[in-house]
Amino acid sequence: MNPLPSHIPATMRAAVLRAPKDLVIEERPVPIPGPGQVLVRVEAVGICGSDVHYYQHGRIGDFVVRDPMVLGHEPSGTVVARGPGAGFHPVGRRVSLEPGIPCSRCPQCRTGRYNLCPEVSFYATPPIDGALCEYVAVDEDFAHPVPDSLSTDSAALLEPLSVGVAACRRARVSPGSRVLVTGVGPIGLIAAQTAHAFGAAEVMVTDIAPHRLDLARELGATHTVDSGSTRIARTGFEPDVLLECSGAPAAADEAIRAVGRAGRVVLIGMGGDTIPLPLAHVQNFEIEVTGTFRYANTWPTAISPAAAGEIELDRLVTHHHRLEDTERALTAGALDRTAIKTVVRPQEN
Amino acid sequence: MNPLPSHIPATMRAAVLRAPKDLVIEERPVPIPGPGQVLVRVEAVGICGSDVHYYQHGRIGDFVVRDPMVLGHEPSGTVVARGPGAGFHPVGRRVSLEPGIPCSRCPQCRTGRYNLCPEVSFYATPPIDGALCEYVAVDEDFAHPVPDSLSTDSAALLEPLSVGVAACRRARVSPGSRVLVTGVGPIGLIAAQTAHAFGAAEVMVTDIAPHRLDLARELGATHTVDSGSTRIARTGFEPDVLLECSGAPAAADEAIRAVGRAGRVVLIGMGGDTIPLPLAHVQNFEIEVTGTFRYANTWPTAISPAAAGEIELDRLVTHHHRLEDTERALTAGALDRTAIKTVVRPQEN
Amino acid sequence: MNPLPSHIPATMRAAVLRAPKDLVIEERPVPIPGPGQVLVRVEAVGICGSDVHYYQHGRIGDFVVRDPMVLGHEPSGTVVARGPGAGFHPVGRRVSLEPGIPCSRCPQCRTGRYNLCPEVSFYATPPIDGALCEYVAVDEDFAHPVPDSLSTDSAALLEPLSVGVAACRRARVSPGSRVLVTGVGPIGLIAAQTAHAFGAAEVMVTDIAPHRLDLARELGATHTVDSGSTRIARTGFEPDVLLECSGAPAAADEAIRAVGRAGRVVLIGMGGDTIPLPLAHVQNFEIEVTGTFRYANTWPTAISPAAAGEIELDRLVTHHHRLEDTERALTAGALDRTAIKTVVRPQEN
Amino acid sequence: MNPLPSHIPATMRAAVLRAPKDLVIEERPVPIPGPGQVLVRVEAVGICGSDVHYYQHGRIGDFVVRDPMVLGHEPSGTVVARGPGAGFHPVGRRVSLEPGIPCSRCPQCRTGRYNLCPEVSFYATPPIDGALCEYVAVDEDFAHPVPDSLSTDSAALLEPLSVGVAACRRARVSPGSRVLVTGVGPIGLIAAQTAHAFGAAEVMVTDIAPHRLDLARELGATHTVDSGSTRIARTGFEPDVLLECSGAPAAADEAIRAVGRAGRVVLIGMGGDTIPLPLAHVQNFEIEVTGTFRYANTWPTAISPAAAGEIELDRLVTHHHRLEDTERALTAGALDRTAIKTVVRPQEN
Repeated sequence: MNPLPSHIPATMRAAVLRAPKDLVIEERPVPIPGPGQVLVRVEAVGICGSDVHYYQHGRIGDFVVRDPMVLGHEPSGTVVARGPGAGFHPVGRRVSLEPGIPCSRCPQCRTGRYNLCPEVSFYATPPIDGALCEYVAVDEDFAHPVPDSLSTDSAALLEPLSVGVAACRRARVSPGSRVLVTGVGPIGLIAAQTAHAFGAAEVMVTDIAPHRLDLARELGATHTVDSGSTRIARTGFEPDVLLECSGAPAAADEAIRAVGRAGRVVLIGMGGDTIPLPLAHVQNFEIEVTGTFRYANTWPTAISPAAAGEIELDRLVTHHHRLEDTERALTAGALDRTAIKTVVRPQEN
Repeated sequence: MNPLPSHIPATMRAAVLRAPKDLVIEERPVPIPGPGQVLVRVEAVGICGSDVHYYQHGRIGDFVVRDPMVLGHEPSGTVVARGPGAGFHPVGRRVSLEPGIPCSRCPQCRTGRYNLCPEVSFYATPPIDGALCEYVAVDEDFAHPVPDSLSTDSAALLEPLSVGVAACRRARVSPGSRVLVTGVGPIGLIAAQTAHAFGAAEVMVTDIAPHRLDLARELGATHTVDSGSTRIARTGFEPDVLLECSGAPAAADEAIRAVGRAGRVVLIGMGGDTIPLPLAHVQNFEIEVTGTFRYANTWPTAISPAAAGEIELDRLVTHHHRLEDTERALTAGALDRTAIKTVVRPQEN
Repeated sequence: MNPLPSHIPATMRAAVLRAPKDLVIEERPVPIPGPGQVLVRVEAVGICGSDVHYYQHGRIGDFVVRDPMVLGHEPSGTVVARGPGAGFHPVGRRVSLEPGIPCSRCPQCRTGRYNLCPEVSFYATPPIDGALCEYVAVDEDFAHPVPDSLSTDSAALLEPLSVGVAACRRARVSPGSRVLVTGVGPIGLIAAQTAHAFGAAEVMVTDIAPHRLDLARELGATHTVDSGSTRIARTGFEPDVLLECSGAPAAADEAIRAVGRAGRVVLIGMGGDTIPLPLAHVQNFEIEVTGTFRYANTWPTAISPAAAGEIELDRLVTHHHRLEDTERALTAGALDRTAIKTVVRPQEN
Repeated sequence: MNPLPSHIPATMRAAVLRAPKDLVIEERPVPIPGPGQVLVRVEAVGICGSDVHYYQHGRIGDFVVRDPMVLGHEPSGTVVARGPGAGFHPVGRRVSLEPGIPCSRCPQCRTGRYNLCPEVSFYATPPIDGALCEYVAVDEDFAHPVPDSLSTDSAALLEPLSVGVAACRRARVSPGSRVLVTGVGPIGLIAAQTAHAFGAAEVMVTDIAPHRLDLARELGATHTVDSGSTRIARTGFEPDVLLECSGAPAAADEAIRAVGRAGRVVLIGMGGDTIPLPLAHVQNFEIEVTGTFRYANTWPTAISPAAAGEIELDRLVTHHHRLEDTERALTAGALDRTAIKTVVRPQEN
């Protein structure tokens, strides 16, 4: 017996990574929502750098793709069915999905830091399947309702926006802050906009790509710096917050040295095993340096400025692909240097 | 006309550093307290590693001793006269002196972080004279009254205790915390005791010197580790706070990697230009790394546990010297490996 | 089939409140631990004012005892069996039970404030049965291991100690704080000790009962005030924290007016619908006034000072009773004005 | 010898309150800026409710006008001369004046809460003269530069905006907050806009005056409620922040009862000696209730959104008057019920 409504098919297509550079579209069963879960028809999935990295290398650090795994962890869609006991969402509600389900019981979960839960199940992190498919089942409290004013693409991009929200919270960005964002790929562009939404008075961004700097300026950055030709110290800008999105050790070192007294640094960009920390500067200026790992309790905060257009997520989307073209979506950045963000639309043919 | 009481002499002895390893006892005028200042007879001055460093090298980083300078910045004594308008302290009051006078007007001062004031005048930091002399004049609100239950030595050592208080505040040590202290020289021994006074449930200390580990244990450390033979990771101890007092990059790196989720690291020990920061660990565990620069608003907090004997400062004092023997005091550590803390008593002959 | 070990009986005795002043000892089935639960043999249960209030009035505010309900929410005991999937605790472990199980999914739970969960199930709060019985089944992560150094009575009293911990956290009691505790019944005596464990330099307590003031002094209060004869304002004590445990509006008003600039007030004592808030004082001194509702994440913090003897819980226990004598336990305070805290021992005959 | 530049006159006009309803324009000496001070030509002064109250009653609480006093504490203008040692501002710079000068030395000042300094000198608070005159001398670090994009009126109204900033900080308004503002006189209208600038997702305002509700809506309030006809509880709105600007005890009580779990209440409106605090609600929902007393370190934060037009201060100004017409300015509200904010321009004739 199929407990799902009859209009929902029994099987679906999914983009499955079998090995590095070996991605196939497979037919898989549509999942049955368990207790407290909803079944969501996936309508947009943002492609993240980690998806690309898994595709190319089959691993990120200690996380190794040993068995075939569905990619994708930035999904939005519509609730189409409810599992036993699920009562939050009516069928038909548009939702954005938070892609990590924590254990809800450990000390990290109990203290509100569920992003640090050691038992979290996170989409497209081995061995957990992701959302580049037609349907996913998810705990109903991790499916967040979105207003009609938010596009389906933007609903998907609430996931990277959550990274920006988490970073700005950790950096205590507040009205009047002076913020430096190093590296304006998708996360940096979002971080810069988020800083502005948190009230930052000045937002300086750095990058080597002119088209990214141009976009950053259009999206509200107050200063742009070509990091290929200009040292931050030469600009005279003394940020009280640094959102480091480049992941480049030398860039991080230079940027940290620019941060003013009592400043906060959030290391968002991922890179090598260690980065050099300028000890005397950190000590003499009492600078706080930290990282951000995913996010907790960010969706409600992220939805409001995105829906109001204060943070423009759609502007980041340069490419769309069908699910069948996931492989092209994963290589878009390499083929087109002006690409910013790619979105896959699993329901389109 | 001498505005000071007649029993106060017009001149005094002072320990003056003229150049590296060139320290003399000079006769200097007793200072006249200005508006809002008090004149304090100096009775004890703790010797700090920075005094030793100036003595040996004539500089610390960008701070260079260009003109003869009195050393010493951990003084206690007794108020013997008051300048115009000074009304806080009666003559005869025992006080501990906070050795840095900020501008009180800049944004750092106005927001309560006067330790970060760029205009601060700090004892024995070029070109400001220190307190290794018989009398000093000081703003009355930086002379802190101490109770009779606190010895004169301990009153002097409220200065390094303030470093411990500032560090424990920044690390948010609170009841139940698990704290790791790497390196138990004088600051580490104080940091470990301060952590306990802040309610830490467990305090592990590491060092290579057995006599320091023994003293740390006597002063309340719950675990001691010989860092020459045992890796922290092997102990199974997962601190939520690291107070890094060794200043050794490799030790700091190893210790940071041991810190648990949402942990805080305060880099107290000074060392080279950069230390390696384990990026993925800092990100994945959202560890906060910061430094502490001196202290602000710490004396009132420090006095209570020191006076109650919960933090034992006298136990750190292994050597006493007269002012004439300041040079021996500055070399005590090199001559006697069991030395912990040396105190100079300017009034003794 | 009984899934429990054969040495565990199928039925047990329980103290059941049927109506105001109608409490009976009933035979009930021993509960079967569900998934993730453990079965705990109850060895001590502290009697709380709320138990007495339910016994006398059958209700507290909107919570009305409509069906027979087991009283008691301060239990300690030993794990005797484990439900499916429960893996934290070995059989035989001594535990203290946290008596409220939240939903773990709502915004309050997700942000670490599970005490504010609207769906919490709390022992002995209608219609949830409490722990005044021989066995309870409980989610394993709400059974907290206690060390051998902690007595069974003290393990039970970790529950009221958790109230003290939650209050001191909300009041930001820290080393050097000056704390006023108004009313030293069991909660006030615990709050005063907790403030000391959080590093308070001075703890003044007020009460009308000399024997309580005496006990408070023995347990570490630095000042005691007979509130029947002395106004707080006359003492010259200016607290930066007020832990209001009397619940008396006039006492609260007087005490709030004594609090110094930027002080914090936590209203712990329960009383009428409203209390008068001295508006100009709260505004001009920027005083924070708040309440505390139960506790979240307090057991690990509470255990350490209790096990170390820094907070003496056993000293509060003036009466012990068998389960059969629960009715006497509930009326002990009325019969003996020197009673402080009563503990019921369900395993004793 | 007049140390001022020759183009500055020796005397000026000032609006002096001699007794209740006895205000005269007097000729007074232009002040000579002391060490570290600047002389500012006053170009706009906002009229505050406290000015009106002093005019009508000659006192506010314990502050009594015993000697003739210049009113006005919301000034903006231009630096025209500098005292000895003053080096921050060039002559000709447009500035907004912070009207309270703290002692800079007491514990409140040293910890960054200089608004709570017991020794503060505050304009137009007896016996300190205010700024309703042609020139004032002020410590240079309390004269805040304003950009050309900010009008002279808005520069004056940075003072009430600072109240809004201080309140939103204390209430921890942040992106996504739901804020209720009760009473939209000038402070309420500013508080509502400030909440929006701090990222509030929803801002509900209540008042009995339709024209104020209309203006609030134009300035960004998302919900408006006629408090004469609608109970807050009926709206279904559950704020997590309440900015109480009405000062009416019954309105405050009703509004506090509407605040959701873990909510924050800032009592801004001034009223009687006490207001009723709904005890059980404050306890069960762990609501924080506090007041705000003036402000500290708010100007730099306030300038940015005001200059960017995110907070519209000029929209509040309904009336302008010359200095000679100060008495009319002080009675504008009584004569014209649609008045919001009145500004006096001392340089106009």
